[in-house]
Amino acid sequence: MEEEKKYFNQIVKLLKPDIEELIESKQWHTLKEVLSTWYAPDITDLFMEIDPRDCVVILRLLPKELASDVFSELDSNMQENLLNYLTDEQVKSIILSLDPDDRTQLFEELPDSLTRRLINLLPPEESKEALQLLGYPENSIGRLMTPDYVAIKHYWTIEEAMEHIRKFGRDAETIDMLYIIDNHWHLLDDIPIRRLILAESNKSVQSIMDHHFVSVNAEMDQEEAAKVFEKYNLTALPVTDSEVHLLGIVTIDDIIDVIREENTEDFTKYSAVEADSVGLDFITKIKNVPFKKIIRARITWLFLLLIMDIITGGIIQGFESIIAKYVVLVTFLPVLVDTAGNAGSQSATLIIRALALGTVEMKDWIYLLGREFLIAGTLGVFMGLGISIMGFVRGNIFIAEVVVSAMIINVIIGSLIGVILPFIFMKFKKDPATASTPLITTLADIIGTGIYLLIATLMLK
Amino acid sequence: MEEEKKYFNQIVKLLKPDIEELIESKQWHTLKEVLSTWYAPDITDLFMEIDPRDCVVILRLLPKELASDVFSELDSNMQENLLNYLTDEQVKSIILSLDPDDRTQLFEELPDSLTRRLINLLPPEESKEALQLLGYPENSIGRLMTPDYVAIKHYWTIEEAMEHIRKFGRDAETIDMLYIIDNHWHLLDDIPIRRLILAESNKSVQSIMDHHFVSVNAEMDQEEAAKVFEKYNLTALPVTDSEVHLLGIVTIDDIIDVIREENTEDFTKYSAVEADSVGLDFITKIKNVPFKKIIRARITWLFLLLIMDIITGGIIQGFESIIAKYVVLVTFLPVLVDTAGNAGSQSATLIIRALALGTVEMKDWIYLLGREFLIAGTLGVFMGLGISIMGFVRGNIFIAEVVVSAMIINVIIGSLIGVILPFIFMKFKKDPATASTPLITTLADIIGTGIYLLIATLMLK
Repeated sequence: MEEEKKYFNQIVKLLKPDIEELIESKQWHTLKEVLSTWYAPDITDLFMEIDPRDCVVILRLLPKELASDVFSELDSNMQENLLNYLTDEQVKSIILSLDPDDRTQLFEELPDSLTRRLINLLPPEESKEALQLLGYPENSIGRLMTPDYVAIKHYWTIEEAMEHIRKFGRDAETIDMLYIIDNHWHLLDDIPIRRLILAESNKSVQSIMDHHFVSVNAEMDQEEAAKVFEKYNLTALPVTDSEVHLLGIVTIDDIIDVIREENTEDFTKYSAVEADSVGLDFITKIKNVPFKKIIRARITWLFLLLIMDIITGGIIQGFESIIAKYVVLVTFLPVLVDTAGNAGSQSATLIIRALALGTVEMKDWIYLLGREFLIAGTLGVFMGLGISIMGFVRGNIFIAEVVVSAMIINVIIGSLIGVILPFIFMKFKKDPATASTPLITTLADIIGTGIYLLIATLMLK
Repeated sequence: MEEEKKYFNQIVKLLKPDIEELIESKQWHTLKEVLSTWYAPDITDLFMEIDPRDCVVILRLLPKELASDVFSELDSNMQENLLNYLTDEQVKSIILSLDPDDRTQLFEELPDSLTRRLINLLPPEESKEALQLLGYPENSIGRLMTPDYVAIKHYWTIEEAMEHIRKFGRDAETIDMLYIIDNHWHLLDDIPIRRLILAESNKSVQSIMDHHFVSVNAEMDQEEAAKVFEKYNLTALPVTDSEVHLLGIVTIDDIIDVIREENTEDFTKYSAVEADSVGLDFITKIKNVPFKKIIRARITWLFLLLIMDIITGGIIQGFESIIAKYVVLVTFLPVLVDTAGNAGSQSATLIIRALALGTVEMKDWIYLLGREFLIAGTLGVFMGLGISIMGFVRGNIFIAEVVVSAMIINVIIGSLIGVILPFIFMKFKKDPATASTPLITTLADIIGTGIYLLIATLMLK
């Protein structure tokens, strides 16, 4: 009922409640009939909840194309698991009916030894294609490419082009966009099929071309390509080599995955979790991520930050005499260093997100640092006023003076760290999100504690 | 050169360097010829860098459709700015040539008074349509909807359908997907145009239907609809009322914006910045966000957290006597509360991201809390071992015992806060990302400080 309210999916709505019963009573024939009318992603959802051995049986029952769609939507653990239950012949049939880009992705994610076994199962042409696609750098757009597009020669007539589409369009990943090439397979234009349909059939393809297209190089980073998709509102993008030979196309569904992955990586990295190790994605339920993987993703940063915190402790030790004299100073330590850290993490977050959206450039850093000085100064004064009363209440006017001065300086320094750190990581070709909140907080701790206790020593002499 | 390496855009590559010269020397005629061959987003980029008055001149020169595409890609400040330079007649012509969904978005973002003026400029039918689209709840999919789709009657022949497309397809937002309806405008199916093209023209539309479609309700939240798009790899989705009457369609380009916005909101909120107030998007350069807006977005949370930190200070004050006796205890305060906060922010980040990706459900909370106890316990022991040496070095075996016990308990408590807080916010219909790192860190401070000093008091008696 919940699902029905969220969206209307005719097929699943009618039948989902009965499916698990059919599986339990092993009514494979009925099951085949019912599931054959489902969408692949719904069957994938089902697979996440039932016994893998039942999945294997169902996978064998389904029409070949649907089976491979279902298979390509599964997470890589599940795929590996199922492959172990299938015979070589069955594996071959599934792999062969996958789209080339989904095949590349599968090979990418499986263990090397299994990938080699699978590639060996393929016929020569497909195996060559797979090795070629895997030859592009990791995270390059070449890895997401499919060679299943419709190419049209520029000197054909509209009628000839339509004939070609009717003949070869069935296997293409999309026929919404057609790619116009010359005899050397140079990309000349891309045109939407609507323009072909709306044109008179005896005219030439040339006559409806506008030589107006965007293409990306196969070596281009996937995140960069995602920005091109967004900027030009595209649903498919041709991929070429540096001489603008058409190599393949990339479609929007793969790009959405890239955007989500990029965001997940930024988001987790920004909290000092090694995102790659956890492997959050659309399919893997968080409760199924293995214990060990989570520990591994978290412990390195926790240890690094622990060591930095020990430095802060060392600084405090250096000021032990003033603390012993004015124990009340300790009660302001948390508010001073935390506010600095919070301000710093706020400014870092704005910079990191702007870098991801492409609305800030490397050269802006000096301007932004200057502006941050003014912003943080303003915030610092407000925070200083906020804490001043407590300085009186817990201490006296001198303590209040120390605390207010330290607050203003700390907020400024914390914020400046937050602005500059993402740029520094970027400069050294690291993800700017490595400037995580915990890292900024810890740096603010070290510097903030030092400044506070130094000010106290100087002013309370 | 930089840009050329990144992607190949035939038109801009050739001419960008000369454009600014043409503008400066006011060669409007040449400019019109050149820019008419450009993509709208590239002209938008150009507009961000030149004088608004030049933009107005260029906008008037461009072909109507291109002008409205350029206009719809601009940020809302710029749009408002340009509207002020144009006459009512010019404004009307631009607004009328916008796609209905872009028009809704423009009206949404402009000040109310300006929106009213613009709606009054529209002819009765368009003005009615605009008011209708604005009638859907904010952030509902209805607001992103366009009524410009191609609807096909189920009893037509393929030939009749193609004829209809040739006649009405030109104005549709997409003809890649066709929507099959009955005489009461009930949605019966959606079929890709490829199926129509590949079918024999004398067959009926009915014969190529599979009654296999996903549609969303117009009231559905945009983020939920984005998940439907992702799950089924769609490029367009029909929108219906609760009786499955077809109201319009939503296309993938608008959905990508939704995904990016959602991620920006999560990301900034998670660092205690009020995202809405900053208004980060694809177009607004971060350096152009006004000073005041940034202060406003940051100060509320900084103040709230400051007050919570004052509580931590109060707790320390309560333990002043033990601190005065063992000043060395203070040197471990940062490492203990920070590690707890860091562990908590790590666990929160995983939960929040999994909630955004839809790979965790409300009912999982109890299981995840239990597992977190084990994970955090393990991490706590490692961290305890890490800090134990410093306990000896700075203090003695008793101090070491206090610090190690406090560390283990603090990491566990910090992590549990990180797991449970996003669920609590979710339960109360707040964005789970409100469980920000600064908030978790501050809570971990309060509790961690209390526990540490309590343990110290008990064990060092």
